[in-house]
Amino acid sequence: MKAYKDMDKSELLALKADLEEQYKTEEAKGLSLNMARGKPGASQLKLSMPMLDVINGQSDMHTLLGNDTRNYGDWDGIGECRYLFADMMEVKKDNVVICGNSSLNIMYDTVARSMVLGVNGSTPWSKLDQVKFLCPVPGYDRHFKITELFGIEMINIPMDENGPDMDLVEKYVNNDASVKGIWCVPKYSNPTGITYSDEVVRRFARLKPKAEDFRIFWDNAYCIHHIYDEIHDQIPNILEECEKAGNPDMVYIFASTSKVSFPGSGVSAIATSLKNMEYIKKCMTTQIIGHDKINQLRHVRFFKNIDGLNAHMKKHADILRPKFQAVLDVLESELTGLGIGSWVKPRGGYFISFDAMPGCANAIVEKCKDLGVVLTGAGATYPYGKDPLDSNIRIAPSFPTPEEMLAATKIFVLCVKLASVEKLLEM
Amino acid sequence: MKAYKDMDKSELLALKADLEEQYKTEEAKGLSLNMARGKPGASQLKLSMPMLDVINGQSDMHTLLGNDTRNYGDWDGIGECRYLFADMMEVKKDNVVICGNSSLNIMYDTVARSMVLGVNGSTPWSKLDQVKFLCPVPGYDRHFKITELFGIEMINIPMDENGPDMDLVEKYVNNDASVKGIWCVPKYSNPTGITYSDEVVRRFARLKPKAEDFRIFWDNAYCIHHIYDEIHDQIPNILEECEKAGNPDMVYIFASTSKVSFPGSGVSAIATSLKNMEYIKKCMTTQIIGHDKINQLRHVRFFKNIDGLNAHMKKHADILRPKFQAVLDVLESELTGLGIGSWVKPRGGYFISFDAMPGCANAIVEKCKDLGVVLTGAGATYPYGKDPLDSNIRIAPSFPTPEEMLAATKIFVLCVKLASVEKLLEM
Repeated sequence: MKAYKDMDKSELLALKADLEEQYKTEEAKGLSLNMARGKPGASQLKLSMPMLDVINGQSDMHTLLGNDTRNYGDWDGIGECRYLFADMMEVKKDNVVICGNSSLNIMYDTVARSMVLGVNGSTPWSKLDQVKFLCPVPGYDRHFKITELFGIEMINIPMDENGPDMDLVEKYVNNDASVKGIWCVPKYSNPTGITYSDEVVRRFARLKPKAEDFRIFWDNAYCIHHIYDEIHDQIPNILEECEKAGNPDMVYIFASTSKVSFPGSGVSAIATSLKNMEYIKKCMTTQIIGHDKINQLRHVRFFKNIDGLNAHMKKHADILRPKFQAVLDVLESELTGLGIGSWVKPRGGYFISFDAMPGCANAIVEKCKDLGVVLTGAGATYPYGKDPLDSNIRIAPSFPTPEEMLAATKIFVLCVKLASVEKLLEM
Repeated sequence: MKAYKDMDKSELLALKADLEEQYKTEEAKGLSLNMARGKPGASQLKLSMPMLDVINGQSDMHTLLGNDTRNYGDWDGIGECRYLFADMMEVKKDNVVICGNSSLNIMYDTVARSMVLGVNGSTPWSKLDQVKFLCPVPGYDRHFKITELFGIEMINIPMDENGPDMDLVEKYVNNDASVKGIWCVPKYSNPTGITYSDEVVRRFARLKPKAEDFRIFWDNAYCIHHIYDEIHDQIPNILEECEKAGNPDMVYIFASTSKVSFPGSGVSAIATSLKNMEYIKKCMTTQIIGHDKINQLRHVRFFKNIDGLNAHMKKHADILRPKFQAVLDVLESELTGLGIGSWVKPRGGYFISFDAMPGCANAIVEKCKDLGVVLTGAGATYPYGKDPLDSNIRIAPSFPTPEEMLAATKIFVLCVKLASVEKLLEM
């Protein structure tokens, strides 16, 4: 294969004509495929249907401690569910508060609480002239939307295969008191799929924040979401590492079963230091009497323990793997050597991150849309929806079938090629 | 019966000696009864157990429109659930957003959002020097806790049998731009049990707020929670009345099934104008991808429609009525004519409100506690936990059995009598 950049103008024009021909053929097919969001597919949803049988009209609805899950009480979650999440989040049960159906909601609430009430008694962020968050990029669009909504200034931090650029993180956090937080997806990162290295995690723990109300928002969304049986990424325990480094209160860890049981009907949790928990308790017990304990009981009785969770995740992996593989196979066979894009092969999570030639991402997404393939909007993986290089595209392979993913990725590479040729001809 | 205030000192002393004797007898029994919180009793929880059978591992999990409730989507709730709540809340489906398991949480979020982001683009309340809420008293302690947490100044508004003192409400709302809200429980009020008169509701709708971001927080918690078959209180539709009066955006209505299905595992909703909804949507879709739609489906398939809801509430009423009656019978037989307390006979809701002689509420609650009967803390029904007259006590008859309520109320009247005699002897 000849790299596009090595082609002369006549070669590019001939290639363009050929690609446009293929484009017309695909256009005529009128496909309708969606690779936009990290939605589990139908066969994944089926995996958890038996969970809806473990609690029924005849069930004993009491916890192991004898509390009635059908009534008010247990604001921080039923004991057995706290144990289950403690194992999943690799922390102690006493550090876990079980919440509602959405970890995003806990993150929003945590930022909102800091805005209005401060962090453990600090000045409310809304009273400060400037509040900044560091945003490793590319990252999760919904994180960035939260900080954007609250008018928090977002600063891009480049990511590589080991995680965020820690020199830059340290420079900001250790010197700028207006830097109050950082968004992290430490394992199988959204969207790059990489896992933070041990050194990166430990450098996080050893930060010396200028602001005492600086917090790491550690969204461990994909903590048990491996794709391959033989490779399970591990990261050091951030809560323990922070304790060791003398920063016991510096991190909030978030997780949920949205992509374990059912998106929207799962269980979520926050894990943090006991001191942070005391403050959260004060606010949360004003906000709500308690979360849905019947659903907590349903989850515990179905999964039983961490082994049950892992066995269940293996079934998800078996369904997801061929979909990821379909995308990766097409990217590899069609784009290798052309110099018009790069991608990471993820070992877990929900996304494949594709970096096109600078200035091409928007055009690719538009072309795909015209051919009936919906991708996450270009730029979405950056704060304010602005990818400075117009290069990154997030591919979500989970929802369509492997066959649909194959078809969609063929469309995708065609659009990558065409947009790249057009870009090179402009130059 | 001779009123206590008409007794001379020797009569009071003799009475005191007799009551102290009874007190010792009760003390020896070592009872343990709880009339503190509005928790449904065990037999009420049983009523909804069949709801846990309507969704099982074999169920079709799609909405009438074909959306999969097990996956992301429908941020504002599944259509059929919005229709069900529209009927319950007496509004149109398009004015309803279905939320999570707790209407208190929606209220907290609504206040929090106004604090950080303002109301439909107004100056965030946290940026203002002064923000005030009107608090009809006695009222719901958890409402007051929310406004207290956010540092909002609370102003007591006396209640009578028709609702809040509307002269006072109008004076504040129409003249003071720092008055941003009022907490209302318009039907079977917590704790007084009264229902706002039509005239009070219409005067609310006709307010001319000085602050354009003034909102009525209309917590219609007990909208279908009647106790008697033959008497169902009705109130004018506040949303329609506000529209008619040229105040279409002035009200947020809240409701839930916490005391219909299961506390903590029910469904809640907010109803408001389309303009307010647009703003809520902007914030809520940043906060959460969506609420628990499987639980929404479970509720709709179990209750089916408003008739199903009402039939179910009749069963609750049959269980609650004897408990309320047990309290009312003892109060009437033991306290009538003594001039040491007054109470309202509620036609719905969860509470009986008792007004003791000024200066006696704390003493009564303490004495009850010593005899093993836990009541809501005296003062809880007032902002900052401060009842200026130390008079109001909230009785929650729902959780104990009728026999236990009988025993607990006998203890209660004994403590009322003793505290009153002690107070009179002090004077």
